[in-house]
Amino acid sequence: MKEFELIKKYFTEQAVNRKDVLLGIGDDCALLTPSERQNIAVTTDTLVAGVHFPHNTPPRAIGHKAIAVNLSDLAAMGAEPTWLSIAVTLPEIDEEWVGEFCAGVFELCEFYNVQLVGGDTTQGPLSITVTAQGLTPFDKHITRSGAKVGDWLYVTGEIGDSALALQHHYNKIKLSKDALDVVSKRFNYPKPRVLAGQALREYATSAIDLSDGLLSDLEHICKASNVGVNIVLEDLPISNALYDSLGQQDAIELALKGGDDYELLFTVSEDNKVGMETALANVGVTVTCIGQLNTTDKITTTLNNKPTHINAQGFEHFSQKD
Amino acid sequence: MKEFELIKKYFTEQAVNRKDVLLGIGDDCALLTPSERQNIAVTTDTLVAGVHFPHNTPPRAIGHKAIAVNLSDLAAMGAEPTWLSIAVTLPEIDEEWVGEFCAGVFELCEFYNVQLVGGDTTQGPLSITVTAQGLTPFDKHITRSGAKVGDWLYVTGEIGDSALALQHHYNKIKLSKDALDVVSKRFNYPKPRVLAGQALREYATSAIDLSDGLLSDLEHICKASNVGVNIVLEDLPISNALYDSLGQQDAIELALKGGDDYELLFTVSEDNKVGMETALANVGVTVTCIGQLNTTDKITTTLNNKPTHINAQGFEHFSQKD
Repeated sequence: MKEFELIKKYFTEQAVNRKDVLLGIGDDCALLTPSERQNIAVTTDTLVAGVHFPHNTPPRAIGHKAIAVNLSDLAAMGAEPTWLSIAVTLPEIDEEWVGEFCAGVFELCEFYNVQLVGGDTTQGPLSITVTAQGLTPFDKHITRSGAKVGDWLYVTGEIGDSALALQHHYNKIKLSKDALDVVSKRFNYPKPRVLAGQALREYATSAIDLSDGLLSDLEHICKASNVGVNIVLEDLPISNALYDSLGQQDAIELALKGGDDYELLFTVSEDNKVGMETALANVGVTVTCIGQLNTTDKITTTLNNKPTHINAQGFEHFSQKD
Repeated sequence: MKEFELIKKYFTEQAVNRKDVLLGIGDDCALLTPSERQNIAVTTDTLVAGVHFPHNTPPRAIGHKAIAVNLSDLAAMGAEPTWLSIAVTLPEIDEEWVGEFCAGVFELCEFYNVQLVGGDTTQGPLSITVTAQGLTPFDKHITRSGAKVGDWLYVTGEIGDSALALQHHYNKIKLSKDALDVVSKRFNYPKPRVLAGQALREYATSAIDLSDGLLSDLEHICKASNVGVNIVLEDLPISNALYDSLGQQDAIELALKGGDDYELLFTVSEDNKVGMETALANVGVTVTCIGQLNTTDKITTTLNNKPTHINAQGFEHFSQKD
């Protein structure tokens, strides 16, 4: 397994050198010096080949996604990402694979000034576990439990495209080349809403990142906050690619139930709507109001002012064998 | 995969509730409030079934070991363990397996007052990745790079027993029942030297934990500190089980090259020998002086004052298929 030493070289070739990293990769532990009066947010997510991404996914996309899904969790708390540890289990060493994987990792790290401070590489079936850490000022984080009746429900970006890419992958639908290009990029290279999350610290009453599907993740907010919500289906932010490929009804269903969006779903009080919209525009992120919280304890939907029936079951990621 | 929700229940049933954990498992991230004037030590280690432990290992031992190997890395830095994240990938849900695994995890967590703050469970080939964090006072950590010529080389406990357990597992040797009981316990339930590590902060010039084998890990200290060392082989702390099973020569070889000891290997100046030995006795850990650092840039060995030849190749963990 000496070849695995090679990966360590890649891991130490990162460009980011944060001042709060006293000791990086290379000893038994890394040593970090956190800022005073900040809390540390920590999250861990594993991606397994054949479960979270198809086996033929480009290694650069795997590296990107492993980081992105963790930064997305930090974003949902309003945290500024700072440090990462990566554990990679690989069936065999392929230097080209490792180089591309690390390129995907480091692109995001450099963009967000996040330093890789720990790495472990082992031989086995392909999977990647990332632990990401970030900082939030005392009392300035966002949880799932702060939503209030009357708050407005918002989502960043567009939703359902990743699920559409998977439908194509499983031959359930045949997409045009242009549509496939758009949605594959969304699936393989999701953009974590890091800056939006930090901007939302001042405005949102609750937030979650969309990984399992809007309905499924929204249920977490409703349960944690003890509220209900009505979603206005015609307001869901659906891409042209999704709308044109499936038509409105199926597009809406995929937007509600598809996973892997990595957008932020959040709630804002009436008083903070304008301030929030301005702040998010300032960081270049589009947001859409898709409903309002109520006392029903349920998730309901309307289309053109008429109640519609939904099965409140989100996707559970990519899970078929490919 | 809804069954995986079951595991989350186990994960949240831990007894430890640290005051510096503002928010535990259940949101997008955990939130930690580190003490002021402390650095954070972070380490990540993955255990893969069939690579780091045989497939028939009891789940309680797997849980114990996944935590122990990470606490061992924290110990080698002199850190006090505080928070853990666990990512478990499991082929299928077996409640009994999960219960036993969690029992192994929580026994160590409770003993050392470490709180589980993050968990991810996914379906796939069995592997466990743990990220462990701990605290060290500013400027009071131990690295691999502080060893000086003239310092004495020490090791905690006894070494080679885990490697002997593997020899039996591979049918390379047939152990007596008594010897097997002793060494299997060492292999399956290694004791991380957490208290010893913290005691050593005041005395050791360098430290590393023994995971790949004494020679292999010692090389890291020698390279990082730019020193050589002579090991006095007859002084190696070898258990009766190992000595009686293999005889002196083979026992020494296994003690030098076998992995998975999770003892601490460290260096102490002449002036600090007595203080260190007293401090370690106070935490109930035996230590043995096994050599002295020199300017040769090499690792050499003597047996009864005569130079011996060694092949400076450590084990690379358990890696054969079982």
